[in-house]
Amino acid sequence: MNNFTFHSPTEFIFGKGTETEVGKYVKKYGGTNVLLHYGGGSVIRSGLLDKVKESLDKEGIPFVELSGVRPNPRSGLVYEGINLAQSEGIDFILAVGGGSTIDSSKAIAAGTVYDGDFWDLYSGTPITKALPVGTVLTIAAAGSEGSPDSVITNENGMLKRGTGSDYLRPKFSILDPELTETLPTYQTAAGITDIMAHVFERFYSNTPATEITDRLCEAVLKTMIKEAPKVIKNPYDYDARANIMWAGMVAHNNMVGVGREQDWASHSIEHELSAQYDVAHGAGLAVVMPAWMRYVMKHNPMKFAQIATRVWGIDMDFNNPEETAIKGIKRFKSFLHKIKMPTSFAEIGAKEEDIPEMAHKACYGNGGTGTIGNFVKLSQKDVEEIYKLAL
Amino acid sequence: MNNFTFHSPTEFIFGKGTETEVGKYVKKYGGTNVLLHYGGGSVIRSGLLDKVKESLDKEGIPFVELSGVRPNPRSGLVYEGINLAQSEGIDFILAVGGGSTIDSSKAIAAGTVYDGDFWDLYSGTPITKALPVGTVLTIAAAGSEGSPDSVITNENGMLKRGTGSDYLRPKFSILDPELTETLPTYQTAAGITDIMAHVFERFYSNTPATEITDRLCEAVLKTMIKEAPKVIKNPYDYDARANIMWAGMVAHNNMVGVGREQDWASHSIEHELSAQYDVAHGAGLAVVMPAWMRYVMKHNPMKFAQIATRVWGIDMDFNNPEETAIKGIKRFKSFLHKIKMPTSFAEIGAKEEDIPEMAHKACYGNGGTGTIGNFVKLSQKDVEEIYKLAL
Repeated sequence: MNNFTFHSPTEFIFGKGTETEVGKYVKKYGGTNVLLHYGGGSVIRSGLLDKVKESLDKEGIPFVELSGVRPNPRSGLVYEGINLAQSEGIDFILAVGGGSTIDSSKAIAAGTVYDGDFWDLYSGTPITKALPVGTVLTIAAAGSEGSPDSVITNENGMLKRGTGSDYLRPKFSILDPELTETLPTYQTAAGITDIMAHVFERFYSNTPATEITDRLCEAVLKTMIKEAPKVIKNPYDYDARANIMWAGMVAHNNMVGVGREQDWASHSIEHELSAQYDVAHGAGLAVVMPAWMRYVMKHNPMKFAQIATRVWGIDMDFNNPEETAIKGIKRFKSFLHKIKMPTSFAEIGAKEEDIPEMAHKACYGNGGTGTIGNFVKLSQKDVEEIYKLAL
Repeated sequence: MNNFTFHSPTEFIFGKGTETEVGKYVKKYGGTNVLLHYGGGSVIRSGLLDKVKESLDKEGIPFVELSGVRPNPRSGLVYEGINLAQSEGIDFILAVGGGSTIDSSKAIAAGTVYDGDFWDLYSGTPITKALPVGTVLTIAAAGSEGSPDSVITNENGMLKRGTGSDYLRPKFSILDPELTETLPTYQTAAGITDIMAHVFERFYSNTPATEITDRLCEAVLKTMIKEAPKVIKNPYDYDARANIMWAGMVAHNNMVGVGREQDWASHSIEHELSAQYDVAHGAGLAVVMPAWMRYVMKHNPMKFAQIATRVWGIDMDFNNPEETAIKGIKRFKSFLHKIKMPTSFAEIGAKEEDIPEMAHKACYGNGGTGTIGNFVKLSQKDVEEIYKLAL
């Protein structure tokens, strides 16, 4: 096990009806003038936004609103948010939505107190302060409610870049599984895939002797396998929604990833798909991950056989562990089909002729130096082969 | 799954040599005048205390020392610590040791800024503030390094009482597994038992639909089963020590217990053993837990069969789940023997004639109202039967 630090100071308020307490928690964490940041339609239609405003009113906390966040959140809205926050003397950013809204809120929180262009903070300049952020989460997926991460797409050149800092960890996150019950199946399934990908990116590692984090990774995966089909069948299965929502946080606050080298190649490979075809991140991961697994499996078949047997319940073939490994990957792919995710270029309208450019961008874009991933270091050529396996 | 809040803001610094950074973290969390609190012999002999002092000196942070903490930490030393902290203008308590030292430090931290007798805070008065506490952990066991809990024994009547408050969560905890390599086998094994007990107390619950926390509980247990025999055989197995040490934190910061009713009867039943015979808490738990399991198993045999099959790898007997449940309990008992823990009254010098009094104290002592536990609510009579099963 490698040395590490782990710091997840976010307060989580979990369960039915907890969104009505949001005002209390904004107050607890010092908010006296709030920027209320969200996307659009669904939080308004569902009545969630009204509940949030009512709760802020009840505590006498003034707020200004900034809506319009969309998937793969853009820099333009972040600049707008920073200007608004500065001119209105905002001291707290409240995100009501999913990963995109939270990531956009984190960018505004850091940018408002940064003396310069916020994009610097997504281009290598370390974040040294940020306004406090709180969240009311509406989709189990990105894990941004408990993570130090934020990904923003710069409209100037469509660069998609991430940053991370403990200053960006939300002060509190309200997780009410009921809020996820009205999500379309596709979004629910994309979220589930994202959660599982967050575990796989951490699990596939060359660091030896990581039994505790291996087992925690497996715990999250087994939970997803049991609960996901339930919510696809019945979106109003509260307990299944609850298990998935908490698993989504656990999968990405790094509890299951400490002390080990992590991979993250599949996320880079996927980012090009969602940038090029505006496909949901989770759906892109459903296309990329099984292909990545097939491509790198031979690097350490036993690690794949471990997932096949422990997580998918496949009998170990002791004469041929690679067979077991392959069965596990196939099972993952079947599972993705079962929850109605795409697993091929064809299904998301991606084109073979775009492969060389996407592979180049994945390896050299965003300041890349030619290789991505750690479990296996992948060159542009390797990434092309992985895309081809996903055709 | 039940509604819950989860807040574990402690920063964990984990790995080889991390104790030399303690000064830096005291500074980070605002310490300018430190009470350095510890037990005695081992932290001095090992050179750990000198390293800690050197690190504080390096950051120019003055400190006063208070040693003498012993297992089942006493109120007398807490009063001494509070007086010292008040007279010296202490603003940070640094614990160097195990659960007892950390619990004693937490008591001093709360008592120093409380206007009254600190024992009030262990008798029902809620804690509303405390000095910041940091820890350098020397034994994987109590989980106090990441928990809001503290247990103190009042010498006036030998009352052993616990309290809990998020104000008592350490600001940071330094976990270097190497520091645990020189522990005697008995203490190591008692710590391992304590860690497993923290999981069982959470696992055995009547709350339905808790897949994610069930799986996380099982992850910790399986890790202990794999790693514990390694450190009993070779105390210098760093990776096994590391997995156990992190599992000890995970087992008790409540990550594996949120959203469910928890039991905690075994801890109450054990407390009377350690109070009466001054036996290590973990060793007392090794005596109590298998007996408790046998006694309550019929309440929900499937829950025990789940542990038997998923954790101990026993084949499920589908015609007779109770048989499977019993096999799992037996396997736990064999495991405890394997790591050289006692599992009977005889082995710890406990006496049958003390049973009625201990059972009475367990149910009615410390403000008890006659029943303990939640998985099964136990009366004094039940507790007597459990003690008898452990003869």
